[in-house]
Amino acid sequence: MNTSEKTNPKLSLELYVYEDDFFEKNHITELSQLIPYLNTPKKFWLNIVSHDENLLSGIAEIFAIHPLALDDIKNKQQRPKLEEFDNFMLLVTKMLYTKSNISNIHSEQVSFIIGKNHLITVQEDEFDIFDGVRIRLENPAGKMRKMGPDYLTYTLLDAIIDEYFILLEKLYDRTEQLEDQVMVNHHKSLLSAIYHHRKSMQEIKKIVWPTREILSAWKKSESPFLKKKTFPYINNIYEHAVEIIENLEMQRESIATLLEIYMTNISLKQNEVMKTLTIIATIFIPLTFIAGIYGMNFEYMPELQWKYAYWVIWAVFLLATAGMITYFKKKKWF
Amino acid sequence: MNTSEKTNPKLSLELYVYEDDFFEKNHITELSQLIPYLNTPKKFWLNIVSHDENLLSGIAEIFAIHPLALDDIKNKQQRPKLEEFDNFMLLVTKMLYTKSNISNIHSEQVSFIIGKNHLITVQEDEFDIFDGVRIRLENPAGKMRKMGPDYLTYTLLDAIIDEYFILLEKLYDRTEQLEDQVMVNHHKSLLSAIYHHRKSMQEIKKIVWPTREILSAWKKSESPFLKKKTFPYINNIYEHAVEIIENLEMQRESIATLLEIYMTNISLKQNEVMKTLTIIATIFIPLTFIAGIYGMNFEYMPELQWKYAYWVIWAVFLLATAGMITYFKKKKWF
Amino acid sequence: MNTSEKTNPKLSLELYVYEDDFFEKNHITELSQLIPYLNTPKKFWLNIVSHDENLLSGIAEIFAIHPLALDDIKNKQQRPKLEEFDNFMLLVTKMLYTKSNISNIHSEQVSFIIGKNHLITVQEDEFDIFDGVRIRLENPAGKMRKMGPDYLTYTLLDAIIDEYFILLEKLYDRTEQLEDQVMVNHHKSLLSAIYHHRKSMQEIKKIVWPTREILSAWKKSESPFLKKKTFPYINNIYEHAVEIIENLEMQRESIATLLEIYMTNISLKQNEVMKTLTIIATIFIPLTFIAGIYGMNFEYMPELQWKYAYWVIWAVFLLATAGMITYFKKKKWF
Amino acid sequence: MNTSEKTNPKLSLELYVYEDDFFEKNHITELSQLIPYLNTPKKFWLNIVSHDENLLSGIAEIFAIHPLALDDIKNKQQRPKLEEFDNFMLLVTKMLYTKSNISNIHSEQVSFIIGKNHLITVQEDEFDIFDGVRIRLENPAGKMRKMGPDYLTYTLLDAIIDEYFILLEKLYDRTEQLEDQVMVNHHKSLLSAIYHHRKSMQEIKKIVWPTREILSAWKKSESPFLKKKTFPYINNIYEHAVEIIENLEMQRESIATLLEIYMTNISLKQNEVMKTLTIIATIFIPLTFIAGIYGMNFEYMPELQWKYAYWVIWAVFLLATAGMITYFKKKKWF
Amino acid sequence: MNTSEKTNPKLSLELYVYEDDFFEKNHITELSQLIPYLNTPKKFWLNIVSHDENLLSGIAEIFAIHPLALDDIKNKQQRPKLEEFDNFMLLVTKMLYTKSNISNIHSEQVSFIIGKNHLITVQEDEFDIFDGVRIRLENPAGKMRKMGPDYLTYTLLDAIIDEYFILLEKLYDRTEQLEDQVMVNHHKSLLSAIYHHRKSMQEIKKIVWPTREILSAWKKSESPFLKKKTFPYINNIYEHAVEIIENLEMQRESIATLLEIYMTNISLKQNEVMKTLTIIATIFIPLTFIAGIYGMNFEYMPELQWKYAYWVIWAVFLLATAGMITYFKKKKWF
Repeated sequence: MNTSEKTNPKLSLELYVYEDDFFEKNHITELSQLIPYLNTPKKFWLNIVSHDENLLSGIAEIFAIHPLALDDIKNKQQRPKLEEFDNFMLLVTKMLYTKSNISNIHSEQVSFIIGKNHLITVQEDEFDIFDGVRIRLENPAGKMRKMGPDYLTYTLLDAIIDEYFILLEKLYDRTEQLEDQVMVNHHKSLLSAIYHHRKSMQEIKKIVWPTREILSAWKKSESPFLKKKTFPYINNIYEHAVEIIENLEMQRESIATLLEIYMTNISLKQNEVMKTLTIIATIFIPLTFIAGIYGMNFEYMPELQWKYAYWVIWAVFLLATAGMITYFKKKKWF
Repeated sequence: MNTSEKTNPKLSLELYVYEDDFFEKNHITELSQLIPYLNTPKKFWLNIVSHDENLLSGIAEIFAIHPLALDDIKNKQQRPKLEEFDNFMLLVTKMLYTKSNISNIHSEQVSFIIGKNHLITVQEDEFDIFDGVRIRLENPAGKMRKMGPDYLTYTLLDAIIDEYFILLEKLYDRTEQLEDQVMVNHHKSLLSAIYHHRKSMQEIKKIVWPTREILSAWKKSESPFLKKKTFPYINNIYEHAVEIIENLEMQRESIATLLEIYMTNISLKQNEVMKTLTIIATIFIPLTFIAGIYGMNFEYMPELQWKYAYWVIWAVFLLATAGMITYFKKKKWF
Repeated sequence: MNTSEKTNPKLSLELYVYEDDFFEKNHITELSQLIPYLNTPKKFWLNIVSHDENLLSGIAEIFAIHPLALDDIKNKQQRPKLEEFDNFMLLVTKMLYTKSNISNIHSEQVSFIIGKNHLITVQEDEFDIFDGVRIRLENPAGKMRKMGPDYLTYTLLDAIIDEYFILLEKLYDRTEQLEDQVMVNHHKSLLSAIYHHRKSMQEIKKIVWPTREILSAWKKSESPFLKKKTFPYINNIYEHAVEIIENLEMQRESIATLLEIYMTNISLKQNEVMKTLTIIATIFIPLTFIAGIYGMNFEYMPELQWKYAYWVIWAVFLLATAGMITYFKKKKWF
Repeated sequence: MNTSEKTNPKLSLELYVYEDDFFEKNHITELSQLIPYLNTPKKFWLNIVSHDENLLSGIAEIFAIHPLALDDIKNKQQRPKLEEFDNFMLLVTKMLYTKSNISNIHSEQVSFIIGKNHLITVQEDEFDIFDGVRIRLENPAGKMRKMGPDYLTYTLLDAIIDEYFILLEKLYDRTEQLEDQVMVNHHKSLLSAIYHHRKSMQEIKKIVWPTREILSAWKKSESPFLKKKTFPYINNIYEHAVEIIENLEMQRESIATLLEIYMTNISLKQNEVMKTLTIIATIFIPLTFIAGIYGMNFEYMPELQWKYAYWVIWAVFLLATAGMITYFKKKKWF
Repeated sequence: MNTSEKTNPKLSLELYVYEDDFFEKNHITELSQLIPYLNTPKKFWLNIVSHDENLLSGIAEIFAIHPLALDDIKNKQQRPKLEEFDNFMLLVTKMLYTKSNISNIHSEQVSFIIGKNHLITVQEDEFDIFDGVRIRLENPAGKMRKMGPDYLTYTLLDAIIDEYFILLEKLYDRTEQLEDQVMVNHHKSLLSAIYHHRKSMQEIKKIVWPTREILSAWKKSESPFLKKKTFPYINNIYEHAVEIIENLEMQRESIATLLEIYMTNISLKQNEVMKTLTIIATIFIPLTFIAGIYGMNFEYMPELQWKYAYWVIWAVFLLATAGMITYFKKKKWF
């Protein structure tokens, strides 16, 4: 296979070669340029911002990546996972972010191939969030220069999980906003908003849950690619993942209660409507009947001729109304 | 037992004999034809598309299959399972597919008898999905020719689980369709649709859940019939099963919420109906009463003779109506 | 203690003595008849169809049954259990069956005392379902003659669990029947039916759940009374128990959803009723008011003298009605 | 510390000293009387019916009870627990009983200090239920005389757990009573009754759950104070605790369903009320309108002069009513 | 780094140096004052009431605290955790309290750095609850003087967890208050109160849950910083944490039921309102229609001239009313 032929001209891989006292940034335009680094004693990080099939196949050939690992990297729907192979460790996770509003969560896959001396990352798009890591790598006094590719993976994962927290914050604001609305508003659109909010939380949980698992596996792993020295760091981000999940779970429960409260609120509203109707109808329907009686045209209706009949009937009207109102007051309908 | 006698004339077993550098496809019409292969050093795959009792008993006799294993294969209601016997491993699973719509899921049993050098599969119907595996087996450069019957089992299982994903996709589309309908439609048939959708998901989970278990058992198995080399592959489809279950669980939660939202929506609708009634009744019932008063036939009703009484009463009507409307506006019933 | 004295004259124990090439069925009328068999090298099965206190105490004395085991056997409310004692294994389970309809589940206790060479079963009533086992035991070519009392226990348990499946089938039919009814019927009795159906399922689960546990314990047991050779058989019925529990769980979920759907259906029905009332009231209440106006008896009501007033008012009636109907059509209340 | 000084004159401790062939019951009035027994080779049971601080501190000093254990014994809100100390085992549990009705459950703490050769029990009140144990202890042929203080603890625990079953029975009766009421009665007080019934069940579970845990810990314990010989007995009461919890769980589920059924029942009732209103209103409101038309006083209303108009209008009334009734019949509102 | 320069002038650290027979309390105003104590064989407790970044960094430098531990201490949102480092153990937890009402829970972070011979605590504010510990430390006869920094940690944790119980008590009172209100009151504000009460419980659980985990980890820990002798004490507060969680769980369930009961109560209220309306409307609407008939102005209405017609019609009115009331009585609507 002639790899240089297949890769497209826009090929742009960043290669960071580093040692305690050495740093070099290379722009790779042909895969063959990578070959000299294969047996270097120096550590390097190859950052690939592309999911081009040919490119990835070329990389896989150069670095002897197992076909199953390659499949996982290529498959953009891959569930987060950690798997050990003979010559490297594969870690796949997702970057989560929103462009505008929280009900629209984007996810992009990031794969880490962690070797003894090198790290290869494959992502779909350029992220700003990795810039901080690059800057720290250039700093000769920084810890990263002394540590291996597993520590570098940690710093990148840490950047990703920090983004999850930002998302979580936005979700939390949305939950609070929905809480406020539920207490005052009964519009139908609120139902749909609650439903989609719940789905957003599910989307995040779907990613964070397996991420937590892989961090837990890392902590217990005895792989030669994951050094014991980075374990406290991994534990740190593992705890972050646990915290995110607990938070989502709490919000999920809140949302479920919110839906119940919304429903109860609607019933309360309906109660109020029904009470209004019942009060008015209960007062006036009997009165209308009484008025109807004296609207009948029978020839022999003695009351009609009585002098004060009209005023008596008014008294009846007023007394009946007063009686009803007293009854409703006693029943606390007002 | 004279096996050739019992088996019906339509007997059609496919026997694929293969080695790294050898491939032969035989059509078996008499069970006795199988005997020469029993001690062959070559690997072979015997594909049986039938649940004919006699045929299966004949096969069991030839390959020394334990009676319990034979019972499991014959019983079409068998729950997916993995069980080790002295001379083989039994794996039973289900093929799931829909012919027309998603609420109609068919399941067909597929049993795998995994020996040291051979694989026997028993299925009810011919599936297209196994064709791909057959083609790969004919390919002399393919991995399958080098690997044992456990790898062959993996590729067949992989094909089956890919079908589950297609089903999951259809289920997901149906969930989204129901979501859209719940927001706009209150027809009773929707209830029944939601109920049957939930049952479909249960049906799939009932199959995938034990499938996940058997894949997990395979991963941990120390059976001589399952080689360590195929474990990464099994892990791959194990992860698929996990993903399907997580997805079903998420959809199940969504459907539960959907039902609540549907119910809340009906209450909202009812609220609207009640408000309309209450507004109309609350305005017109008192007015009708007032009109009724002046429809009474008392002889002495001074207002009746007043010149502008009729216009005054109209003013009362209009003012009362305006007052009511203002009240309802204040209560935000409009 | 003189055991022969205490046992009542109706004493009828069946004793089956068997070997690979030997079978003898004895009818025991006095407990002392059992003593010769205590040290026989032959295997035997003693079937006791009685919970008579004295009889059981006599048996316990003869076979040196621990007092706690005896208590468990005597107590008809005993939860299914498996417990090892020095000289035997105690297994208590329940036979479940319905006489007429599914909402009336009977349970009868069956206890197994599994010794090295003998099995004692204690049951309350004669069951037909054990007849099959007796016939197989008489068959000299049968497997049962070769296997020990643990295998005999398995075949009896298998017969019991097959009965559970029959019950499950009936429950399933009842669930489907309730499903159909919920969609068309709103009668109050349905509520009670659903409630009692749920309780029936709980009753079964209460028995099958610990049965599953004891089968699981058997599988892991290292008791000398349970031979490794019977483990695949036990695994078989263990899987049946798992399947029953999963099925009950699925049906339980279905029933819960059914209740929700029933409730939603009632709301839908109520919506329909309310709409009818609202449409009629909203159309006719205002019209009645208008008619009421012109039924007033004021002296000065110019419209009353207008020639076409009556036809004009009819036009108003018709227009108002048409307007209302249009409004309701727009709101999709029809 | 002068213990005799601090203890109040009402001090009444029962000391039972026993051996296989020895039994002595002493009434202790001064703590110093206990000292001779400290190094006796005989077994003894000291029963303290008091939570007097000074008394307990005195006892703690004599028997070298760890301050934490003393705190647990003194604290009447202590959660049931089992804890091993150097010179004894502490077991704290609760006695549960009702004086009058089931919604009023009392709990009293019972603490067991299990030494090598002695048992100290601390309870708040005298219980009748321990009398049976005392009688069995006096019986020279009884098992209790042969066994150690752990077996004595078992018999006392057994008596306590038997009381739980009596409570459970009462709870069950109450559940059945609520079931019957829910089907026929819609009184508001039922809601409150269901709520308090659920709380009663919670109260019991709160005690039985940790009791189950401590029995489970006992079974697995390797403490020198708990002999292997008593394990089958402990297993027995452990199973009782499991059964109580399963039963409570089943009742809890039933009560949850009951509440749903109650709610659905109210909706059904409301449906019936609404139907009555709708039928009456839908029939008579239009008729009243028609009557209202011919009650208008327009001068030119040709129908009024028609000879048979009145009979025609009656025909209209009757036809309209018949039509409506037919419509409602078709809709199955009757 | 010149630490004395960075720390602000308000620096106020309390240093308690203690031995079995030694106690000294020092007020530290410059970090450099701490240096002599670093290698003292005496035990000391350094209490820092500040989260000042510079101060904490200075402390970290002096005591060689791992950067990750420092991050955890500084981050006030840190989830409770227990982590072992080379030279110390880090325990982070939260102090919970309410200033006025229970729906307003404050949390403040408390970090413990447990070394071999010293304890450093970092808190945000001065708490009264630690005063008791200080007094016990000054007492030369107290246990605390003999035990190490882990026991000191226990006493401080115990004080914190006692505060949780006070909170729990308040929550419980609030739950009971809500229970009472739900039975009599249907005000909308109750919904919001229930919702916020649930959130308060979540807040506490969020803290207590991981606290329980860290206490459980402590119990199993084999760290050199946690001595076996303090394990019974830790077990004690571990049990308190378990009890708090169980209690919260029980209250959470109660609140969920409460919400359902509130909803059912609203339905009951609505039923009552609807019945009132239906009774009045069903009685008077038909009567009004009858009155309307005889209010019609047809020329030929024979009944109008009948002498007793008016009385007959009154009889009809009364009979119809009596009939209706009988019907409603039979239906138990009164």
